[in-house]
Amino acid sequence: MAIKVAVAGATGYAGGEILRLLLQHPKYLAGEIEIGALTGNSNAGQHVADLMPHLPQLAERVIQPTTTEVLDGHDVVFLGLPHGFSADIGAALSDDTLVIDCAADFRLKSAEDWTAYYGSEHAGSWPYGIPEMPGHREEIVQARRIAVPGCFPTGATLAVLPAVEAGIAEPDISIVSITGVSGAGKKASVAMLGAETMGSLKAYNTAGKHRHTPEVAQNVAEVTDKDITVSFTPVLAPLPRGILTTATMPLAKGVTDDAARAVYEEFYKDEPFVHVLPAGAQPQTQNVVGSNMCHVQVEVDAQAGKLLVTSAIDNLTKGTGGAAVQCMNIALGFDETAGLPQAGVTP
Amino acid sequence: MAIKVAVAGATGYAGGEILRLLLQHPKYLAGEIEIGALTGNSNAGQHVADLMPHLPQLAERVIQPTTTEVLDGHDVVFLGLPHGFSADIGAALSDDTLVIDCAADFRLKSAEDWTAYYGSEHAGSWPYGIPEMPGHREEIVQARRIAVPGCFPTGATLAVLPAVEAGIAEPDISIVSITGVSGAGKKASVAMLGAETMGSLKAYNTAGKHRHTPEVAQNVAEVTDKDITVSFTPVLAPLPRGILTTATMPLAKGVTDDAARAVYEEFYKDEPFVHVLPAGAQPQTQNVVGSNMCHVQVEVDAQAGKLLVTSAIDNLTKGTGGAAVQCMNIALGFDETAGLPQAGVTP
Amino acid sequence: MAIKVAVAGATGYAGGEILRLLLQHPKYLAGEIEIGALTGNSNAGQHVADLMPHLPQLAERVIQPTTTEVLDGHDVVFLGLPHGFSADIGAALSDDTLVIDCAADFRLKSAEDWTAYYGSEHAGSWPYGIPEMPGHREEIVQARRIAVPGCFPTGATLAVLPAVEAGIAEPDISIVSITGVSGAGKKASVAMLGAETMGSLKAYNTAGKHRHTPEVAQNVAEVTDKDITVSFTPVLAPLPRGILTTATMPLAKGVTDDAARAVYEEFYKDEPFVHVLPAGAQPQTQNVVGSNMCHVQVEVDAQAGKLLVTSAIDNLTKGTGGAAVQCMNIALGFDETAGLPQAGVTP
Amino acid sequence: MAIKVAVAGATGYAGGEILRLLLQHPKYLAGEIEIGALTGNSNAGQHVADLMPHLPQLAERVIQPTTTEVLDGHDVVFLGLPHGFSADIGAALSDDTLVIDCAADFRLKSAEDWTAYYGSEHAGSWPYGIPEMPGHREEIVQARRIAVPGCFPTGATLAVLPAVEAGIAEPDISIVSITGVSGAGKKASVAMLGAETMGSLKAYNTAGKHRHTPEVAQNVAEVTDKDITVSFTPVLAPLPRGILTTATMPLAKGVTDDAARAVYEEFYKDEPFVHVLPAGAQPQTQNVVGSNMCHVQVEVDAQAGKLLVTSAIDNLTKGTGGAAVQCMNIALGFDETAGLPQAGVTP
Repeated sequence: MAIKVAVAGATGYAGGEILRLLLQHPKYLAGEIEIGALTGNSNAGQHVADLMPHLPQLAERVIQPTTTEVLDGHDVVFLGLPHGFSADIGAALSDDTLVIDCAADFRLKSAEDWTAYYGSEHAGSWPYGIPEMPGHREEIVQARRIAVPGCFPTGATLAVLPAVEAGIAEPDISIVSITGVSGAGKKASVAMLGAETMGSLKAYNTAGKHRHTPEVAQNVAEVTDKDITVSFTPVLAPLPRGILTTATMPLAKGVTDDAARAVYEEFYKDEPFVHVLPAGAQPQTQNVVGSNMCHVQVEVDAQAGKLLVTSAIDNLTKGTGGAAVQCMNIALGFDETAGLPQAGVTP
Repeated sequence: MAIKVAVAGATGYAGGEILRLLLQHPKYLAGEIEIGALTGNSNAGQHVADLMPHLPQLAERVIQPTTTEVLDGHDVVFLGLPHGFSADIGAALSDDTLVIDCAADFRLKSAEDWTAYYGSEHAGSWPYGIPEMPGHREEIVQARRIAVPGCFPTGATLAVLPAVEAGIAEPDISIVSITGVSGAGKKASVAMLGAETMGSLKAYNTAGKHRHTPEVAQNVAEVTDKDITVSFTPVLAPLPRGILTTATMPLAKGVTDDAARAVYEEFYKDEPFVHVLPAGAQPQTQNVVGSNMCHVQVEVDAQAGKLLVTSAIDNLTKGTGGAAVQCMNIALGFDETAGLPQAGVTP
Repeated sequence: MAIKVAVAGATGYAGGEILRLLLQHPKYLAGEIEIGALTGNSNAGQHVADLMPHLPQLAERVIQPTTTEVLDGHDVVFLGLPHGFSADIGAALSDDTLVIDCAADFRLKSAEDWTAYYGSEHAGSWPYGIPEMPGHREEIVQARRIAVPGCFPTGATLAVLPAVEAGIAEPDISIVSITGVSGAGKKASVAMLGAETMGSLKAYNTAGKHRHTPEVAQNVAEVTDKDITVSFTPVLAPLPRGILTTATMPLAKGVTDDAARAVYEEFYKDEPFVHVLPAGAQPQTQNVVGSNMCHVQVEVDAQAGKLLVTSAIDNLTKGTGGAAVQCMNIALGFDETAGLPQAGVTP
Repeated sequence: MAIKVAVAGATGYAGGEILRLLLQHPKYLAGEIEIGALTGNSNAGQHVADLMPHLPQLAERVIQPTTTEVLDGHDVVFLGLPHGFSADIGAALSDDTLVIDCAADFRLKSAEDWTAYYGSEHAGSWPYGIPEMPGHREEIVQARRIAVPGCFPTGATLAVLPAVEAGIAEPDISIVSITGVSGAGKKASVAMLGAETMGSLKAYNTAGKHRHTPEVAQNVAEVTDKDITVSFTPVLAPLPRGILTTATMPLAKGVTDDAARAVYEEFYKDEPFVHVLPAGAQPQTQNVVGSNMCHVQVEVDAQAGKLLVTSAIDNLTKGTGGAAVQCMNIALGFDETAGLPQAGVTP
């Protein structure tokens, strides 16, 4: 019998991306995965044709309200809901259901951090969906609840973790992450209009105010006992998809370019979705658009005494929907790469 | 034994797109298709990693020179070469080899048109790769030589053919086709710099000068005996991929919106890659990015006495590389949709 | 004593553009123009610094509510209000005040057209602010009420008028106008988000539904007695500013490229803001960004029997705010070009 | 008698921007400045109409070759040439001529730095054209040779100088500067094609390799005796114009947001072209497009122990051509702001 998959909050960008990937998933094409309920909030009752015309296969489907009744009876439920909502839904669904949450609710282990950054009560934490972090793939295999990481923390964590673990740089990390506009979600606002974002660059939620800051610190803390400092500056840039992350850290003494690259190549040598670029190449977001890849480069800036790491991901794929499907693949025992492109839609 | 596929001119945008699609083709993933020689011209000897970093699976591959020796021994050869070159290669390869040409050499049946628009001798014509045109799918099944259509003619032909065939509009066609910049290919030029194309719109090769003009007329002539007039105005717009075509034709008497849409729905009712949109919706290029789809809308402008048809394709997928793979699927007896996304990479 | 200028609806794109131009107007720099009240609706009480950070000279100014009390006592009042609102304000202000309306209220002479397209009662018509149309400059000199044309009608009218007046083409006009996203105004909406508009092209209000259609027909009717047909297809493209218009018309017998260009050069020979390009060049929107120019090209498509005219304007400058200032200059007896750039902000 | 101005290398982006600004300069409009020779290299003999269609006022002008003969007899010569070339021209022109060089030749004081970064012999150094740096305006008044700073150093210097001078942060500076594509100049290349740059982000010349790195360090050294470390990471983003700079520095003990902002407001209180934003606002490049402004914000990141400064400029205006005209204004005793917009072409 086919595995029945629901997507709650299907009409947002995360939901749409999960559906795009499921529709080309070999298990779906073979009839082993069935796409069940698609839910929305204000959109309930409308056709997919009117809301997500890029998914013609589902054009006739009608969006249902996001309730536990609608979601019950599915084997897998993806949550693409505003944070706060996931906690309730997650608690109401059967323990046997694989629930994969794209919101922030269950990412942070620290209740204190949660309250400081989100202003509400902490709902708890779930296994954290970056399989490339040491020990996480093993945890995800067993999980029936998975917290998909934030898009910025994915790009930043994959960039800095090898260096911090290997001790080739100090965890006093200055991160500038430049993102495409889909990261802000499918919500009407003047600030996110095309006219306000095309042809413009702008930092926002600077100086520690962005909610992804403690998530990055939490991830780094898994590989070091040292004090961790994260300066995180997100910048909005005029492209639909993509995050380019630059991370600058004080260099440990005597580290060379070759030694640094060797650390990264070793760390990621078995990872299908992390590609350490050859020396001299820099990650470019267009090379990962629509794919589940993270491209990484590491370099020594000897004069400034810094290690510079750069990474590129598609914020909606590896940064959200692709990570969600990757976690589903692992938790259901599928080939981890099933349905997840490694080649980018370039140019 | 696996089917061995070569891509000549692999490092251009057409070649890169064919490879992106092959790498996620189920026959490739199952080991039934093997990617053989990748050739280039000035790039021969370089690694794919340096030329097409969006294809990490092929990173270690080395580009070979484009010669018949290199291409011999493959079951399928895709040609992504400048026009003029294809004729020679096509003649030199074995008749048993399936040769799918993305250049213009074999598209036009009229030697006179060829010489008028391309200025050289006509090499002949091959079965023309728009399977959605009446009779073409049947021809492609049998073919060992296939001419992939131009990107503009694909969007324009799929837009106007049903109306002309059904006689609901006169073939006095004013076409404005707005294209993304990848249509100009991966060649250095000042006019195609990012600084010259971002934030700008510009018509070019206007007033009958564009080489795709006679190709559109040729296609329309297959469904009508009337005199055909094609005014074709291509416009360059600041997006990487996508063509939006608007076609305006004198309306036949008494045709209503419903009648016009019924003609289109009937014409395309069994086509997996043409999606006639519901009334009120307009094709949007972002909904077909990276997919092999053509979205179409048809409307009656009663006051102006015109039929307006609009279509959206990705110029590199349905407009080139996707069409090439679709033709390969048909010619090799595969499922026509294998490896060809129907969902767009949206937003 | 300085001329006192108010801008009602100052915080929208039209209002912002008028202010940008006034701030570099020689009469303002010389102290002969004074910027008085700036009004808004929901924004009243906020600082310009928070709403229009691109105008640092006015940063400390506070937006006032849009009332006749606030606007009274100014010599010039620019209206950048939603249509419907202008009629009331226009009626309430003193007859001596120069009122320049950027909304649609007073553009159409036909009450029937108004009601058909806007659904409300017709408020009347004011002198129409395209000084380049025969007789209009003379009318504007005398006017104390001026209706600034729509952005699309400006580009389309300047493109087709010379041809229709000279009879070198029939007024059976197929217009496709491709616009940047600022044309939609500074209003929150999902459809106009950066993520929905970048990397995409889309026609809208097609097949006679766009409200600018009768305005174009009205303008053309001023120079011909023939029956006029206007098929108008607006297309949204991913750039902040700019409109490229293509107009296709049946060619009169025997018209050559040279004869057509001569008609245009003669028609515009004294116009400071219309530039007929040399043969072979095509208008490009980036060449007019931020300027009050309209670049035009005309060509004969002999094979298709069509005249093709293309034009480029900045929808916010020549298409709105620049036209408003140009009309002010004329009505106040200033040099018509004062404060209005002819050079584009390129690239 | 009018001041005669030549632009050598007029057809590049720097030259075009200088001309755009001169054409709306009040001294030009008043006939007190005359635009003399416009020179190019491969473009000599062509018309401005074909090379810079955004400057219709100069359409009929012919580009002359760049020789001292052509440039002799001008009162002001702007150089928009490739570096290396300026040194020769600068030496050959009369000492009385005001020569303003937009290339790098005379920016660096250290011959060692020059050779390390440019690989050729050092030509010397000229007064450095950031009038906002302490003492520089006074130097420029007297100068007949001026080196216009690089675009990145302008944005970075204006961002960090007040903090370093006041000692509120340590000069261990991590700079990430995100730039529009016009910064790469008007040279054909595959990497700078629209298709390669739209929809993409990419760091380049990372880890100390960018030639603007020592220029930033040189500027910082003017206000501190401490050891200076500059990590400089330029990133290419898909917009035509604009640089957003983020600078992260270790915070001095006890510095608050208010104290930091007070330092910046004091430092720039008399500067017409630097605008310190109100608390809570972030610089956005679209707000400075086409203007000579630099918008700056400064913030304390207490948790990370860092000072974060961000700045936005238009790389072609304040970053090149506007700075050149600003220096001309100072050196000729004009109003420093003459002809230089403070309002941005927004959106």
